[in-house]
Amino acid sequence: MNKNLLSLADLSRKEIEDLIAFAEKFINEDGSFKKESLFPDKTIANIFCEPSTRTKSSFEIAAKNLGCHVLDFDTDSSSLQKGESIYDTVDALSLMGVDLCVLRHSESIIHELTQYIPEMTFISGGEGSISHPTQGLLDLMTIIQHKETIDNQNIVIVGDLDHSRVTASFIQGISNFDFKSLTFSGHPEMCKSFQNHAQGKYEPDLNLALAGADVIVALRIQHERLEAEDIIDIDQYKYEYQINSERLAMAHEEAILMHPGPVNLDIEISTMVYESEQSVIRQQIANGVAIRMAVLSQYLSG
Amino acid sequence: MNKNLLSLADLSRKEIEDLIAFAEKFINEDGSFKKESLFPDKTIANIFCEPSTRTKSSFEIAAKNLGCHVLDFDTDSSSLQKGESIYDTVDALSLMGVDLCVLRHSESIIHELTQYIPEMTFISGGEGSISHPTQGLLDLMTIIQHKETIDNQNIVIVGDLDHSRVTASFIQGISNFDFKSLTFSGHPEMCKSFQNHAQGKYEPDLNLALAGADVIVALRIQHERLEAEDIIDIDQYKYEYQINSERLAMAHEEAILMHPGPVNLDIEISTMVYESEQSVIRQQIANGVAIRMAVLSQYLSG
Amino acid sequence: MNKNLLSLADLSRKEIEDLIAFAEKFINEDGSFKKESLFPDKTIANIFCEPSTRTKSSFEIAAKNLGCHVLDFDTDSSSLQKGESIYDTVDALSLMGVDLCVLRHSESIIHELTQYIPEMTFISGGEGSISHPTQGLLDLMTIIQHKETIDNQNIVIVGDLDHSRVTASFIQGISNFDFKSLTFSGHPEMCKSFQNHAQGKYEPDLNLALAGADVIVALRIQHERLEAEDIIDIDQYKYEYQINSERLAMAHEEAILMHPGPVNLDIEISTMVYESEQSVIRQQIANGVAIRMAVLSQYLSG
Repeated sequence: MNKNLLSLADLSRKEIEDLIAFAEKFINEDGSFKKESLFPDKTIANIFCEPSTRTKSSFEIAAKNLGCHVLDFDTDSSSLQKGESIYDTVDALSLMGVDLCVLRHSESIIHELTQYIPEMTFISGGEGSISHPTQGLLDLMTIIQHKETIDNQNIVIVGDLDHSRVTASFIQGISNFDFKSLTFSGHPEMCKSFQNHAQGKYEPDLNLALAGADVIVALRIQHERLEAEDIIDIDQYKYEYQINSERLAMAHEEAILMHPGPVNLDIEISTMVYESEQSVIRQQIANGVAIRMAVLSQYLSG
Repeated sequence: MNKNLLSLADLSRKEIEDLIAFAEKFINEDGSFKKESLFPDKTIANIFCEPSTRTKSSFEIAAKNLGCHVLDFDTDSSSLQKGESIYDTVDALSLMGVDLCVLRHSESIIHELTQYIPEMTFISGGEGSISHPTQGLLDLMTIIQHKETIDNQNIVIVGDLDHSRVTASFIQGISNFDFKSLTFSGHPEMCKSFQNHAQGKYEPDLNLALAGADVIVALRIQHERLEAEDIIDIDQYKYEYQINSERLAMAHEEAILMHPGPVNLDIEISTMVYESEQSVIRQQIANGVAIRMAVLSQYLSG
Repeated sequence: MNKNLLSLADLSRKEIEDLIAFAEKFINEDGSFKKESLFPDKTIANIFCEPSTRTKSSFEIAAKNLGCHVLDFDTDSSSLQKGESIYDTVDALSLMGVDLCVLRHSESIIHELTQYIPEMTFISGGEGSISHPTQGLLDLMTIIQHKETIDNQNIVIVGDLDHSRVTASFIQGISNFDFKSLTFSGHPEMCKSFQNHAQGKYEPDLNLALAGADVIVALRIQHERLEAEDIIDIDQYKYEYQINSERLAMAHEEAILMHPGPVNLDIEISTMVYESEQSVIRQQIANGVAIRMAVLSQYLSG
């Protein structure tokens, strides 16, 4: 296993399965998380250079559950504002004894940082549009909880795929497994890179895409983006791509519906479907804490 | 006792007295606060969607004194900025294992949140202009420390009553007790809702209002408001409503003067009065930590 | 020793040497810092009213290494924004049980605060252009690690001296020792107060200033300042004042180069020099944590 977690492409099937099995051990029978002071000597910096609620909080809660010190790094009030580079900042934190940085950044800079500061351990908390590996892990964990395995599943991803780091990490993660089929769906303007993709087929008609699906991953639509591109009308979008009860019925009757959150209710998913038993979206959030506890434990232990 | 603390209207006299007695137990003889790791397995989110210094810090200190994990929720850098609703945020925190949310919001939304997310425990940290229950409790605690009881007290509230959540909670709190009289005073433009009030009488002449008072609660005047409404001149305001030594002398000689802070010195209260022995304003701040330790303990214990 | 640490002028040679020796004890053989819960009952507020990365993080890490509770005081979202004075804020924190305030402020207000709130312990985290005492201590610690003593050293400070609180504290610190010489260098427009200075001589020619130097302190040039004052051209500045390999060779061959950071690489210091063995700049950052652990321990113990 690498020193850093930047991409699921760096993990083998066994490493992924072990991390997920490890994560399960942090969940108590009542659904709460184990809290033991396993790493009282470790200090983690939680550096989010883009707005985030759930990923940042999830890492912070995971780290505190493990008994780590957490440095909540407020990029607004820091010297980063005044031109200090992220390199200088992380180098300084390393010298101050920070053991591990969780880093979210709008650009793809983490790989370069690992070269400059080899003594630091980096966990990506989301990097540009290229990677969000702990999201990928929690997605796989959720599938395994319901389907026992990713092998032999018919998987559909629908939405704004082109700019989705969630999709990128999800595909890297499942490519270690023998899934049966992978189908991309969504407005052609949002799936330009997926119309000739090595690992899956593009099906613009969501009704056809969903036929026989076991696992459906819906992505968040950025309102800003819908408004900006007047080629896409929101009512038309909902008509063609919203996952509602009728559409969900085209999938396998035990299909699960996932979404990285936060959901735009009644845009990409109808309220009725969101609240249905097939929706495992809220379970994904809980799994996020367990996965991050496992990831932090693993990478802190070297 | 309810699962949540949103309003003092939900507490009985006995519940209020028990909470205050409980709070006293967290204060050491030298005035410091007890620090015991009573809740090492509990995680609290401190969500303040309005600027706050003392209430937010007071809850954070109280929670840490009890050994809780505290998630300091920075609403500026969170997804709340980008349109994620407070509902989504609190629901996600609940799934991540947060046991209790302290929430301040400029609008009256906490009751609705309790309906949507019944598994979360909510403590109001101030809600719109309708409620600030822990402030009410610390006010009652301060009166009881000096007067032994709220029964039989002549109580005066003076200042900008119309928009005061402090006043709202204070009145709800004392209405469980047999106070002797409750008098509202202040500029008529700031007391419109208090000129025909079921629980007290309005007396625009502060000199008359203070006659025989045992407990005086002065409220903060918003400079912005004084300036905005040119019907109110600041010098005239001070002439008519500032609590100075002459005015305080009209009250009972053992009257106490309270204020939720921060005080605009020499506007609503003269420096000499602020520093006098009758001023218990700084003691209110200390009591705030003890009350919040009691409230958190109580509501975390279910 | 005073109750507060506002200026190195308040410390004797012995007190400085003891603090540095104390700091060394917090460093493990592998360079990591000791983490023991020495002060589980102490609460520290980290109040930075100017942007800061390393000093703020350094104090936070130091405090957590000692087992203190740390209140991370976000001045952006606090009532300070709305006109509450820093006096009101610190007075309130004191009443809430905060034992020690680390305070950075753009103005020289800490001395006045110590008068108003005598029960609080204050550690300056940088005050206007007058003082940055823990930076001074870590600078002295770094010199002693390499030179065993500050006595008999030829010391050069170069850069924007006039507005440098780092320089102010450094001079106060070394004035307790028998250094051999102290030379100020830099553009005349940036050294106006140092051209007739009681404790050192001004030498505008950096080549001459560096001759025989044992210790070189380079200061950060504010880009804003260079741009604002069109009397100073950036290329001319680098030509005359950048510390590059040729210039460093004029100093003693075992001279050390220090800088408070963050460095503008290839402006005040060349990359080659920054990465050379004579550069102890990154070691200064590590020493910062050890010094702040020693300072917090000392001043928390009274």
